[in-house]
Amino acid sequence: MSRISESTVRRLSHYYRVLQEVDAEGKRLISSHRLAEREGITSAQVRKDLSYFGSFGRRGLGYHVPHLIEEIRSILGLDRRWRVAMVGAGNIGAALLAYRGFAGQGFDIVAVFDRDPARIGQRLGLLTVLDIAELPAVAAAQGFDMGVIATPIRAAQEVADALVAAGVRGILNFAPRKLFVPEHVALRTVDMTVEFESLSFALSQSLAPKRRRSDSGRGRSRP
Amino acid sequence: MSRISESTVRRLSHYYRVLQEVDAEGKRLISSHRLAEREGITSAQVRKDLSYFGSFGRRGLGYHVPHLIEEIRSILGLDRRWRVAMVGAGNIGAALLAYRGFAGQGFDIVAVFDRDPARIGQRLGLLTVLDIAELPAVAAAQGFDMGVIATPIRAAQEVADALVAAGVRGILNFAPRKLFVPEHVALRTVDMTVEFESLSFALSQSLAPKRRRSDSGRGRSRP
Repeated sequence: MSRISESTVRRLSHYYRVLQEVDAEGKRLISSHRLAEREGITSAQVRKDLSYFGSFGRRGLGYHVPHLIEEIRSILGLDRRWRVAMVGAGNIGAALLAYRGFAGQGFDIVAVFDRDPARIGQRLGLLTVLDIAELPAVAAAQGFDMGVIATPIRAAQEVADALVAAGVRGILNFAPRKLFVPEHVALRTVDMTVEFESLSFALSQSLAPKRRRSDSGRGRSRP
Repeated sequence: MSRISESTVRRLSHYYRVLQEVDAEGKRLISSHRLAEREGITSAQVRKDLSYFGSFGRRGLGYHVPHLIEEIRSILGLDRRWRVAMVGAGNIGAALLAYRGFAGQGFDIVAVFDRDPARIGQRLGLLTVLDIAELPAVAAAQGFDMGVIATPIRAAQEVADALVAAGVRGILNFAPRKLFVPEHVALRTVDMTVEFESLSFALSQSLAPKRRRSDSGRGRSRP
């Protein structure tokens, strides 16, 4: 079970969204074909992904929507609430706090910390920004499952260390640098540049499909 | 070439980062093993990914770092500059504008639009927020390659339509909803909840590896 790849987990997240949409439309059954269609992957991939967790589909009928929602919910750990501490009360932090979708999926940002005296004590959404120095004490009193790092690059590793010391077992990092955490702590880094690069790849391919094969160095003629 | 999967492209982005680090350390050669190690994937996967684009490694020696950097740079379309229009001057927009890494990789956010009169005319970083109604005229005058949607959910599809009409060929969407764009436009959606779900999956697995197999409905005893 621990061998489930990161990309399988991401596809489960997407299936979960499609299922919720379909459920909201009142449909009770969905085919692997339909689940695949929405994400541009094959129905064989869908069946393989879902088979990791036991076979829920019925040949010729498809998957039972409410049942599959419950199963994926449980697989992804969305059948409970997670207490999240956020460090960094800048733009990213404010954007994350303003996003209501997290609480809907069970992620409660229950505390926000910063080290800038100008930010400490200010309101951010429903929370008051706390001094990062208080993290150990607040963590001991309240308990955090996960931490979010929304600080500048130079502070990120130090904040990661502080979150680990405070007992979090998962960290979502928005600072574009590699962080080191102990093996028992799950780390995900969101790098926006990767998203841009995925777009520029797609655009480059459509612009100049012939330009690929190492003709660098040669001059390019215009038509 | 157009069959390169999204996940391969993402791995290329990661290799590119590792290579830049290694290059900064002054190293000239890197093994597929080392490239793999950094991302927790197999060296066979690295060789397979890189073989899509021609074989650059030399058996027993590894890959030539500056050469591979140049090749991936070209593959990902990072050997040119991209003009990016951003719509939405809220927290996410401000966070993206403040992030200097984009320009370093060739992504220039050259205009920002909003429809809120309170925001139009204000400075955001080096830019002045423009009225979204001006998008067609500004696009015609300046030309945009890509658009970023950093608006509330309800405005996102309308903004996507406006960006497509303005001639962008790639859209990065931060609004957590499915958007529809013509086939010639590349679309990537950044859904932060997916990142959280990846963490909660990891934490759930480590918490209760045995809880998986559909024992839902039954009461859970505490040890």
